Amino acid sequence: MKERYFEDLKASDRFKSSTYNVTEEAIISFGREFDPQSFHLDSAKAKQTMFEGLIASGWHTAAITMRLFVQTLNFAEGAIGLGVDELRWPNPVRPGDVLEVETEIVDLRESRSKPNHGIIRLRNVTGNQRGEIVQTMMASAMVPKRRVN
Amino acid sequence: MKERYFEDLKASDRFKSSTYNVTEEAIISFGREFDPQSFHLDSAKAKQTMFEGLIASGWHTAAITMRLFVQTLNFAEGAIGLGVDELRWPNPVRPGDVLEVETEIVDLRESRSKPNHGIIRLRNVTGNQRGEIVQTMMASAMVPKRRVN
Repeated sequence: MKERYFEDLKASDRFKSSTYNVTEEAIISFGREFDPQSFHLDSAKAKQTMFEGLIASGWHTAAITMRLFVQTLNFAEGAIGLGVDELRWPNPVRPGDVLEVETEIVDLRESRSKPNHGIIRLRNVTGNQRGEIVQTMMASAMVPKRRVN
Repeated sequence: MKERYFEDLKASDRFKSSTYNVTEEAIISFGREFDPQSFHLDSAKAKQTMFEGLIASGWHTAAITMRLFVQTLNFAEGAIGLGVDELRWPNPVRPGDVLEVETEIVDLRESRSKPNHGIIRLRNVTGNQRGEIVQTMMASAMVPKRRVN
């Protein structure tokens, strides 16, 4: 798979990731390690909550989104996250869900401090197999240029 | 440890978490699963990058922050994340770092849709053992009321 550079992108480019299967086991394992609340840990207890069943931690959804984004864009040397805004979880992620990320490049500029890098602003929308949106976010990342400078 | 409710909080309350040790093994394991880029995966390759060594994924830092926050505030029935803004990573997290989260309650209001819940807005600042800030964020969460309504 070809490695991507800053110069390969322009505003309003869109990318669709591969898919990711979310298992009950993975939801519980992430919950135990990072978000130990009953609706992420135990199917029976989760049934008593407003979610009426086990759901993934929003941070688990965010981490899965990062994985799909990294694989899809495949930046040479990697993309360095600078910040995230407007991170929202409009619908829960449940065991058996299949997630997919759509990335839109919102704008691009040269880096002022690192001449071999550019800064991209992007929107990531994570959806499930029912066409529901489970996460939206805006992110800024520093990505490599081809070093023609 | 006592369970906390919406009514137990007021604006400008502050909480300090316990500490969390970040190992090289955990950084690599999280990177492999969720953020497969060389500066999160391999000490030797990471030395060649601008970070000059292995660093944790920002999403790993965010997940650790959630764990420390959840344990510290300990809401009865849990805190449901509604959204996050201004998530930033001003300094990298490295193997051996010891993280701690300071939470400030910024404001509180009743939930319009769920009479047994309130909405809190908070700021989480994650620091390391050198007093450097490694992550900042604003978050909104829905938390339970004592159900006197």
